Amino acid sequence: MNTFGQIFRLTSFGESHGPAIGGVIDGMPAGVEVDLRFIQQQLNRRRPGQSALTTSRKEDDALEILSGVFEGKTTGTPIGFIVRNTDQRSADYEELRHIFRPSHADFTYQEKYGIRDFRGGGRASARETITRIVAGAFAMLVLRQHGINIQAYTSQVGNIAVDVPYTELDLTLTDAYPVRCPHPTRAAEMETLIRKVQAEGDTIGGTITCVVTGCPAGLGEPVFGKLHANLAAAMLSINACHGFDYGAGFEGIAQRGSQQNDTHYTDNRSGGILGGISTGKDIYFRALFKPVATLLREQTITDEEGRTTTFTARGRHDPCVLPRAVPIVEAMTAIVLLDALLLARTNKL
Amino acid sequence: MNTFGQIFRLTSFGESHGPAIGGVIDGMPAGVEVDLRFIQQQLNRRRPGQSALTTSRKEDDALEILSGVFEGKTTGTPIGFIVRNTDQRSADYEELRHIFRPSHADFTYQEKYGIRDFRGGGRASARETITRIVAGAFAMLVLRQHGINIQAYTSQVGNIAVDVPYTELDLTLTDAYPVRCPHPTRAAEMETLIRKVQAEGDTIGGTITCVVTGCPAGLGEPVFGKLHANLAAAMLSINACHGFDYGAGFEGIAQRGSQQNDTHYTDNRSGGILGGISTGKDIYFRALFKPVATLLREQTITDEEGRTTTFTARGRHDPCVLPRAVPIVEAMTAIVLLDALLLARTNKL
Amino acid sequence: MNTFGQIFRLTSFGESHGPAIGGVIDGMPAGVEVDLRFIQQQLNRRRPGQSALTTSRKEDDALEILSGVFEGKTTGTPIGFIVRNTDQRSADYEELRHIFRPSHADFTYQEKYGIRDFRGGGRASARETITRIVAGAFAMLVLRQHGINIQAYTSQVGNIAVDVPYTELDLTLTDAYPVRCPHPTRAAEMETLIRKVQAEGDTIGGTITCVVTGCPAGLGEPVFGKLHANLAAAMLSINACHGFDYGAGFEGIAQRGSQQNDTHYTDNRSGGILGGISTGKDIYFRALFKPVATLLREQTITDEEGRTTTFTARGRHDPCVLPRAVPIVEAMTAIVLLDALLLARTNKL
Amino acid sequence: MNTFGQIFRLTSFGESHGPAIGGVIDGMPAGVEVDLRFIQQQLNRRRPGQSALTTSRKEDDALEILSGVFEGKTTGTPIGFIVRNTDQRSADYEELRHIFRPSHADFTYQEKYGIRDFRGGGRASARETITRIVAGAFAMLVLRQHGINIQAYTSQVGNIAVDVPYTELDLTLTDAYPVRCPHPTRAAEMETLIRKVQAEGDTIGGTITCVVTGCPAGLGEPVFGKLHANLAAAMLSINACHGFDYGAGFEGIAQRGSQQNDTHYTDNRSGGILGGISTGKDIYFRALFKPVATLLREQTITDEEGRTTTFTARGRHDPCVLPRAVPIVEAMTAIVLLDALLLARTNKL
Repeated sequence: MNTFGQIFRLTSFGESHGPAIGGVIDGMPAGVEVDLRFIQQQLNRRRPGQSALTTSRKEDDALEILSGVFEGKTTGTPIGFIVRNTDQRSADYEELRHIFRPSHADFTYQEKYGIRDFRGGGRASARETITRIVAGAFAMLVLRQHGINIQAYTSQVGNIAVDVPYTELDLTLTDAYPVRCPHPTRAAEMETLIRKVQAEGDTIGGTITCVVTGCPAGLGEPVFGKLHANLAAAMLSINACHGFDYGAGFEGIAQRGSQQNDTHYTDNRSGGILGGISTGKDIYFRALFKPVATLLREQTITDEEGRTTTFTARGRHDPCVLPRAVPIVEAMTAIVLLDALLLARTNKL
Repeated sequence: MNTFGQIFRLTSFGESHGPAIGGVIDGMPAGVEVDLRFIQQQLNRRRPGQSALTTSRKEDDALEILSGVFEGKTTGTPIGFIVRNTDQRSADYEELRHIFRPSHADFTYQEKYGIRDFRGGGRASARETITRIVAGAFAMLVLRQHGINIQAYTSQVGNIAVDVPYTELDLTLTDAYPVRCPHPTRAAEMETLIRKVQAEGDTIGGTITCVVTGCPAGLGEPVFGKLHANLAAAMLSINACHGFDYGAGFEGIAQRGSQQNDTHYTDNRSGGILGGISTGKDIYFRALFKPVATLLREQTITDEEGRTTTFTARGRHDPCVLPRAVPIVEAMTAIVLLDALLLARTNKL
Repeated sequence: MNTFGQIFRLTSFGESHGPAIGGVIDGMPAGVEVDLRFIQQQLNRRRPGQSALTTSRKEDDALEILSGVFEGKTTGTPIGFIVRNTDQRSADYEELRHIFRPSHADFTYQEKYGIRDFRGGGRASARETITRIVAGAFAMLVLRQHGINIQAYTSQVGNIAVDVPYTELDLTLTDAYPVRCPHPTRAAEMETLIRKVQAEGDTIGGTITCVVTGCPAGLGEPVFGKLHANLAAAMLSINACHGFDYGAGFEGIAQRGSQQNDTHYTDNRSGGILGGISTGKDIYFRALFKPVATLLREQTITDEEGRTTTFTARGRHDPCVLPRAVPIVEAMTAIVLLDALLLARTNKL
Repeated sequence: MNTFGQIFRLTSFGESHGPAIGGVIDGMPAGVEVDLRFIQQQLNRRRPGQSALTTSRKEDDALEILSGVFEGKTTGTPIGFIVRNTDQRSADYEELRHIFRPSHADFTYQEKYGIRDFRGGGRASARETITRIVAGAFAMLVLRQHGINIQAYTSQVGNIAVDVPYTELDLTLTDAYPVRCPHPTRAAEMETLIRKVQAEGDTIGGTITCVVTGCPAGLGEPVFGKLHANLAAAMLSINACHGFDYGAGFEGIAQRGSQQNDTHYTDNRSGGILGGISTGKDIYFRALFKPVATLLREQTITDEEGRTTTFTARGRHDPCVLPRAVPIVEAMTAIVLLDALLLARTNKL
């Protein structure tokens, strides 16, 4: 299943070291001006090699749109697009032919399909998220026209957490810091921690918080297509994402109902969603990212029979995925919201 | 969207105070012996009025199967079923016609549809989960034959958490305690806490942990139908569920990659899923439930214009949904797993 | 797959001799007044025993709506409904346990599922079409508000064909004749033919023509959801329907492009659809129904090994399905059109 | 909706005069050897310029596979592919900016989307069918392994019909004749007719018959996913296809049930499908193609206000689509059958 969405749908394809990554965006409303610079900008925010905190792999990620846009506007027909894979060092990966890297998808792909493209993680590579950035950027072109704005930021790295709510942050600062955290002190601490972890050849995870403003009430389907369930599925489709909560979330677990209820009109502990449907207030949620499994140091491994060996990853890898995951979280959010926005047009007589 | 699943699909219908709740189970494999006692037993585990900890509403929840079963076996055709709503005190709810209860879906349904069945929460009532119990029980009939077993338990209520991993618990004890926690000491503490909260007319949330044993490797679609993304969507479709994590999850946020990687064959910090596909080891995850919004005490409410009023819920309600949510978590897990199991039959030549 | 439609969806269940036939209508717009008399009227048009031309089985087909309607209006939530099976003479069918009736689905169900409910055709019974009538009637409640009108009629029985285009007929007369043909002379001839065939214990097929007026331009998806492709799939989902054409169709096979092109604005040889999208003119198409396979006379049968035996159907059966299929054709058309109408709301910015 | 299929799915994109036509094949079983020569061969059978009977446009239709194939085998991941549009003479089409060609989709796209790519028909161009050929060829790679074979041929052009059943034809001869009719005499007559029509700047339609041998019993879903309904939807998704029938079809309309019933084991008047499920016998059906709307001569047109003008198509066009549609019919049939074959794996315990 490589399609996401019901009305506004992304179908994705591509392996890390195949000729290209790409996708088809179906259900894009017609008549939208296509701001190519904006879309490429979003791709650049995801791209490796942006700062010392990210892998030094150089990927141009030049987008080629193959259909669905005519004289600068969307036509309502599907938007096919590709991004060529250029900086492929397949030789780096030849040794993976016979190895299942710890906590990677190598073993599960092999079990599921009986065959796998082992180069650079193949289909399981985070490079696939390029397609979400593109589809998300197209979605944002529509959402902007409806006054809906999406902003995500790194809210925790390891045990360094932004300890104020998003309402006390200036989210326009997010991209000013390499870790994409708009809290200057925490951003500096996170950066220091990531450099330390990197120096140890290790990795670290954390959370991204995402905030949607301007979303009208009434989006989301009440039972199986709850807005937060779709957001969760969207987040957990991103590589290394292992958790999701919204509103008060896990942090409010010790609170009583009398503390979590939104009794005053200005309250929004429910995260902008009630019964699976948007309330018209800000939507906010968190996505948990585990530390990436690729370590740039030797790991001792034991197999089913208890035999011990060692494995050392090669290639160029991020010590912390969070900074680059911020635009992916925003993109997936945009896809979910546009889908819900279009579907909501069919609710009433 | 009231349908869940791709191959094995539940379509659900029904309001709390309409004539019946029901559904259609499509894609059920043919030739499965239908153990009606087992299915009714699962319904009884969800039913209110089981213990002093749950609402005293009496609901018989008598299942009527209308199709798809012939001479005691499934036929491969859709299984239609209903459960009549009998103990309806609609008069309890008449006052809700003009009120949006705090942190309920009343407002959002009204915004979305311009009309709502306000009696007992209407479609947003947890009574709808009856349909998941039924579909889940049918799924379990198949999963059992494949040696797949699902066990959930209350792992945290408020700040009382089971502080040992599931591997150190005897999960067969879960139903022996009213809170459905198999850890005797914690179970007692949770029960005490819930009674205290109940006495205050308040409510409390917590987490349910779910464990799947015997699941073969290879289930789950790698990109948009990741097994954990489907599990998350399933959990977050349950009323009051606000969060999900699996494997090390939020609790492992401060750990490094070197601590979370499964380097030894017996390790399973990844929760039985890698790259969205089951590994063959135990799958385990948590669902977060917030305190239910219906309080049996007066709440002071302010509206958009800052006007103050009060609201006191009537009816019979649970101070803590977790005990009754345990079988629902198991049922939704079964639905996701059977769907993945059937889909995996199409993976290879 | 027992669900039809993308936005407006019918999920159907039920066997001929189970407790009930029913379904779930999902995606019904909220706020529509539910004209129960109209819906029951449509059911009555399908019901057996209406005239001497149809089976004498007495089926009440009393509709019970279980959800999705509140205070006389649709609420946007799914509409669950059932029609009890009352006049079941299961004993009539016991002999079918070990017999595959010629040209029936007995054999194929057995092959597919390894088990079948053999009573009255089980799931393959035309009684399942009750669910389409109900969903179609709900769809019509919306379509009427948009000025869209659907009228079908029997246009051919055996070799007796209405030899004038629909534009020369008074379609309000359709139900005035037992065969549901608005052409008085042809109606009489058809009736005579059906009686003759019936007297011989034989059956006969023909065509139903369906005309949609008032349909706006722009409905239908251009590539895989072409309006005519969806109509064809809808028609061919009806029991005994073996063919479909629209516009000039099979009858225009000898014509040149210069004869079929709509060069004058008033032309409509293309049947109201171009490139899969409605033009705003009348949509018209034909559905071919083969003679039903159940003959009320002895048939000589040979099996795989060439062994000869005989088979005589019992029960009460129609010699010609066309009159009762007219409302089913209309209902399926309504389902397709409402789905397309709702989807078209998402086409533009 | 640019996706077709439930398990084996083709998502298509591309306009006639955009950079490329392409698609994504999802659900392709893993481990299938990819015979690139065979796939390109199928593309060549569809390609224009094959004979004097088809347009002289030169299109290379060189397939580029971008993902899902590794070391010569399918991996189970989605197969992205493109075919570049090379021989684009956009200037030929500039005049279409303000014209709605008679019986083309120009008007309906404009109405639906408020914008259209008018060059060469844009998305409505038959060039889109390239994607079906590719997906169909992949499907055939699997079907061949199951002994399922698909052969289509031109069975009627204008009033020249092959007047013997397919069982009396040598279907291996089909490609030996430019019209793709395996009946030598009829093939010659058809060819003569097409040349005559072409000389007049006119066009002609007809039927293609398709035969599937080796299909096992049990494929197809009994109610809404009937095998013949899916085949019909597949055929009617092909440009210019206006009708479908199977088994005895429209030609058997005057027959009685006693004539159409398959009472002897060797009978197959039902076209290999009963109750929507394959019987294990040959499946055969017809697709009706109307004369293409593009005439290479002047047409007099009147508009809504009765104003008269003329229109003369330019460019290079086929006088009869049937010969080139034969491989498209086969490809769409293969897509439907593989989808049904995979889905049938989930039917039983």
